[in-house]
Amino acid sequence: MDLTGDKPSAPRSSPVYVHNPHLDSLKDDVLYHFSLGTRTHNLPAMFGDVKFVCVGGSPWRIKSFTEYIAAELAIEEPNSGYANICAGTDRYTMYKVGPVLSVSHGMGIPSIAIMLHELIKLLHHAHCTDVTVIRIGTSGGIGLEPGTVVVTKQSVDATFLPRLEQVILGKTVVRNTDLDQGLAEELLQCSKELSQFETVIGNTMCTLDFYEGQARLDGALCSYTEKDKQDYLIKAKEAGVCNIEMESSVFAAMCKLSGLRAAVVCVTLLDRLKGDQLNSSHDVLHDYQLRPQILFTNVSRVGFEPTLPTGDQNPHIGMEALLESGAFDSSAILTEVWSGIIKLQRLNCDLPSEVVLFYFIDLVEPLIPSKTAGCDNEYNR
Amino acid sequence: MDLTGDKPSAPRSSPVYVHNPHLDSLKDDVLYHFSLGTRTHNLPAMFGDVKFVCVGGSPWRIKSFTEYIAAELAIEEPNSGYANICAGTDRYTMYKVGPVLSVSHGMGIPSIAIMLHELIKLLHHAHCTDVTVIRIGTSGGIGLEPGTVVVTKQSVDATFLPRLEQVILGKTVVRNTDLDQGLAEELLQCSKELSQFETVIGNTMCTLDFYEGQARLDGALCSYTEKDKQDYLIKAKEAGVCNIEMESSVFAAMCKLSGLRAAVVCVTLLDRLKGDQLNSSHDVLHDYQLRPQILFTNVSRVGFEPTLPTGDQNPHIGMEALLESGAFDSSAILTEVWSGIIKLQRLNCDLPSEVVLFYFIDLVEPLIPSKTAGCDNEYNR
Repeated sequence: MDLTGDKPSAPRSSPVYVHNPHLDSLKDDVLYHFSLGTRTHNLPAMFGDVKFVCVGGSPWRIKSFTEYIAAELAIEEPNSGYANICAGTDRYTMYKVGPVLSVSHGMGIPSIAIMLHELIKLLHHAHCTDVTVIRIGTSGGIGLEPGTVVVTKQSVDATFLPRLEQVILGKTVVRNTDLDQGLAEELLQCSKELSQFETVIGNTMCTLDFYEGQARLDGALCSYTEKDKQDYLIKAKEAGVCNIEMESSVFAAMCKLSGLRAAVVCVTLLDRLKGDQLNSSHDVLHDYQLRPQILFTNVSRVGFEPTLPTGDQNPHIGMEALLESGAFDSSAILTEVWSGIIKLQRLNCDLPSEVVLFYFIDLVEPLIPSKTAGCDNEYNR
Repeated sequence: MDLTGDKPSAPRSSPVYVHNPHLDSLKDDVLYHFSLGTRTHNLPAMFGDVKFVCVGGSPWRIKSFTEYIAAELAIEEPNSGYANICAGTDRYTMYKVGPVLSVSHGMGIPSIAIMLHELIKLLHHAHCTDVTVIRIGTSGGIGLEPGTVVVTKQSVDATFLPRLEQVILGKTVVRNTDLDQGLAEELLQCSKELSQFETVIGNTMCTLDFYEGQARLDGALCSYTEKDKQDYLIKAKEAGVCNIEMESSVFAAMCKLSGLRAAVVCVTLLDRLKGDQLNSSHDVLHDYQLRPQILFTNVSRVGFEPTLPTGDQNPHIGMEALLESGAFDSSAILTEVWSGIIKLQRLNCDLPSEVVLFYFIDLVEPLIPSKTAGCDNEYNR
């Protein structure tokens, strides 16, 4: 995978399609759930160089992925702090390092669908070309060792059919859920070369519910037996289903319609044939969740040339937005400051004022991105 | 509505039901998406007094609601800071003030369904009785002035039928979406007495998609005309639909099955017959979003007697978790501290050390809950 898009022998320039003639007549397109818009933001300047989008359910995971890939691909200084581009809303979080955009999408088809509508419009308005989108996520495995990574071949519904049913104007429309097979093979090959964890290609079942919809026995409601559950999961396994999650079908359908090269890479947190509850330790689950990120990063490393974005990429991100965004841990800094105050109180303040002042500067300054030092109005990275 | 549950003339004690015989055999019930569990947390001690639950999509709105209702009902000191009980996860946020629990649920049926499964189990494990749950949210109105509040009579699907179709073990199950009519009338009556904004009772259409699923013309995909859209929305209006959102059907179905008295109160942010985009000013939208909170609070005020929780209600919430939870705005405090450092630097530090130190104490101390002052290990409220 070439993040720069530069393939001298076979140049291509595939745009991001919207299929909506009404958009042309909009003077201003408000991407409400991103708190961005075509009138208020220069989307081509902010996002025109995006070649790669990583999406995942959890805002924390998306932030940690951003820091991880920036360090791994040496795009920017690690620990430099990244501003949440969607700081004006709490619906989704978004970060950008070089040509890599990462966006959280919450849980379930409706939540990821809203994000994808606005992401596709964003990439379209920004005139992006040759964009690859990968969903990194967690899932329940069927007959796989926990920690196995599944690269989705086809996303199937709860009756094991590769389709997404959507209701539009009260009528059911069926959409194709194929994903890019070349990209899936590339991800599998990368895992073989890495040889750090097991990766398979298989079908992924996408459900509208985590408990009854996935035949769990531990929801607030459950009207079936352990045997009913096992029979259903074994049928799923026989239909080629390797894992179960809640977003892949609409992700596959919308990316395909928009000309986005797409893959779904989910780690399995447990084997559903053996249980329902996620009671592995925090550390084990954390380690599993890093696997799709590692795979993604190692695939994207191939042919990658660091290209620092130039100019005012985030014209609306000021110091205040930076702090609000949680792009660095202001709570940790505050804990330090508070603990410093307690210590100085115990010393009865018998210190020169310069020492006290420099003490606070020493506490706070290194933890704030260097370019903001002495400048509390602007944040340009 | 009596939050204390004390009605001398007609005492009742209705438990929160789970319909799942398998739960009894679980030694430990891990409420994974809340980062809580029956083995790790004393749920009866933490939640046994809950009589009222407010749920809403946005984590920010839930936090602001918590501060608002605490101040309005004089349950605790305003600005005392509230710890996010689900600080160990980023899937949902949860706050508690007295007998009022508030929980965010993200966007869409799957996201709220996961939360409700775990909320119902939580209330059940905590032995709560006589619990009322209200969803406060935003919606698109049909033929209503923006800002109108709709209290849902019935939640209907995209074909205007009052039902929820769920797929369980690959088979479709249909569930009833009735809500508590007495509670709806109570909320309407309260609005009449308040006389601050328009409130109506009507049907709410619950869809699986925000763009095509709600006949919007501004998604990344749209294959219908303006006339098709208008025809569909007018048919919805004729079927009694007053507004459209994305969570009410599964909320109604699950609350009904669990013996929870439930209502859906959503403000309309725009009239969908006149447009699709949310381009009202931030202030106007913010004002609209307060309306369900105002209504809720004024209804719950009736007969309410403040009852401060006693004992260790949140045994797992320490100072660190408090800071991480964002229960108060540590970024804002840090901005203040930073700005203070800049000012003192300009003064060339020609101040006694006590003044510098007290300057920082004055900045930080009032913004941290009073009970934590001088104590950086524990947070008991």
